[in-house]
Parts: sequence; structure tokens; C-alpha cells
Amino acid sequence: MAELEIDFSVAEGADAVAFLDFMTAVAEETDFLAMDEGGLDASPEALARHFDSQLGLDNQLCLLAKHGEEVIGVLNIKADHRDKLAHIGDVFIAVRKPYWGQGLGSALLEEALYWAEQTETIKRLELTVQARNSSAIALYKKHGFELEGTKKRGAKSRDGAFLDVHLMAKMIG
Amino acid sequence: MAELEIDFSVAEGADAVAFLDFMTAVAEETDFLAMDEGGLDASPEALARHFDSQLGLDNQLCLLAKHGEEVIGVLNIKADHRDKLAHIGDVFIAVRKPYWGQGLGSALLEEALYWAEQTETIKRLELTVQARNSSAIALYKKHGFELEGTKKRGAKSRDGAFLDVHLMAKMIG
Repeated sequence: MAELEIDFSVAEGADAVAFLDFMTAVAEETDFLAMDEGGLDASPEALARHFDSQLGLDNQLCLLAKHGEEVIGVLNIKADHRDKLAHIGDVFIAVRKPYWGQGLGSALLEEALYWAEQTETIKRLELTVQARNSSAIALYKKHGFELEGTKKRGAKSRDGAFLDVHLMAKMIG
Repeated sequence: MAELEIDFSVAEGADAVAFLDFMTAVAEETDFLAMDEGGLDASPEALARHFDSQLGLDNQLCLLAKHGEEVIGVLNIKADHRDKLAHIGDVFIAVRKPYWGQGLGSALLEEALYWAEQTETIKRLELTVQARNSSAIALYKKHGFELEGTKKRGAKSRDGAFLDVHLMAKMIG
């Protein structure tokens, strides 16, 4: 990543359009995500309000990697508002395909783990990953995530085949 | 259950208030559910629209057990709208405490399994259950659900202690 200028920042309202463009692109580029091929079904206005409203929350994070104005990587953490589940951060990571294999996922994950350690709230990070996505699984293991179980028929591929999906988690604090 | 007259029906808009009363009651009666103690945070109007809108859907079900006008048990199945996940039904069951141990959960689950087998869409049912809730786990095992994994710190109890939560699933069709 030495030659690429990449900025990391927390998503704000003004990032909504670039974020939606990113999601549309990754939904086409990979069959490893659960999104439909059209990308995310949200309006820029609603998403902008969502980004702005979660800026002050201790258990929600949307971290962007940008190259110029373009979003090339995203790490999102969402948590349930209910007291009994608010300590669990559900992690989503995606990187634009031209930037795969350059450490961008790893950099995003390190930022997010640092953030999670600083919060009062987050005590568990969890994620699901298709069992066939060996690069992502290796990344998560490298950062301390452990396999907790495997969901049979946990997702479908584009061609309709059932896929195993791993549940992985890392305890925080 | 021989002496109780219990009706099973699919929830409609008119059931919204009785349903919310039920959720408030079970949230107080048990610490086995993830709800906050206030119950469900929804208006009767929004819930009524939700019930009516899901009546025609092939992968959503809200089944009520009623004693007279009172809801005493609920089995809800929800599924993601995304193509890659629409075959997965997420199961929620709750029964009012005075009716525990009388086979009501079992009856609800049998109805739901029959329903799921008739759908075109549902190919997997999944649920989470606190590891300490041995009666519920026994019920799910009896009906063919298998343990897929255990989430460490998967929930908090009312007194703030971390709880293990099992992920269980049953393949359909």
C-alpha cells in the first residue's frame, strides 16, 4: 500500500452517495457478500441521516477507506439497541476488488479493533463469512477472531447453490 | 392441554394490541428473551400494518396461540428480503409463564414446521437460545433442531452477566 494515498475516516452524511456507489460496485464484483446484485436498497438522504445520527453512538461505527473522493473499502459495525445485546458489534467488511490483497482489509480491521477497545459498550465482535472465502477467514483469524460454528445453508450463491457460512467472534476487553 | 381451549391463528392487524400486551408480559416474566423489560418498542398501528403486509409472504409467519382474546403464545418466523438469505427463517417462540410445561411451545413448533414444509422458500430454520434455557433446548432438539455453535457473551442477563447463546438450526425440504 506504499504507493496509494488512502485516507481513513468515519462516515458522515456527505459520504452517503460515494458509499452507495461503493456498495453497488462490490455487490457486482463479488459473490462473497449477502447483498443483492443491485447493491444497497437505501436512498442517499436516509443513509446520510443514518451516518449523522450514529456519530455520537458508542457501539456503532462506519469506517471508510477513501482514495481521493472514491470509497474503496468499508468496515461497518452495528449493534442492537436492546440492553441485553448492545455489547455485541456485528462486523461487515468489504473492499473494492482492484484493491484486494494489499492489506486494506487488515488496516480497516486494526482501526476497528482499536476503536472497539476504547468503547465502554462493545465486549464482543462477531461476523459471518462464507466458508469458501478463505482469504477473509485467514484475515479474521490473524486478528484474533475464532470460529464459533458453521451455519449449514447459511447463504445461497448467485447460481442458487447452498453455502456453508462460518460464525466467527472475538471478545473485547 | 386437554382442559384449555386454545385457538391457533395467523396474526392479523386486529391482533396488534393483544400481541403487544403479550410481549410486555413475557418480557417481565422471563430473562430468557433478549427483549428489554418494557417489551416491544412498536406502535399498535405500525405492528398492525406489519401483520397485514406479511400475510401474503411465503417466508414470514406470525402464529398466535390464544385463550379467548388473550395471546398466550407466539411463534414468529422472519426472513431477510435479500435473495441469498430469503430461504432462512429466523424463529422466535415465547409462551406466557402460567402456560409453561403444558406442551404449548411444542404445539406451536409443530404448526410452524408444517407451514415451513409447505412453503417454496424456506429451506433452513434457525434460532438462538440461551445455553441455560435447558427446557427450550430440549424442545428444539425434540423437533429436529441441531446445535451449530455457541456464541460466547451472546447475551447479557438482567443483572449484567454474560451468557452463552446457542445457535440451532433445522434444514427444511
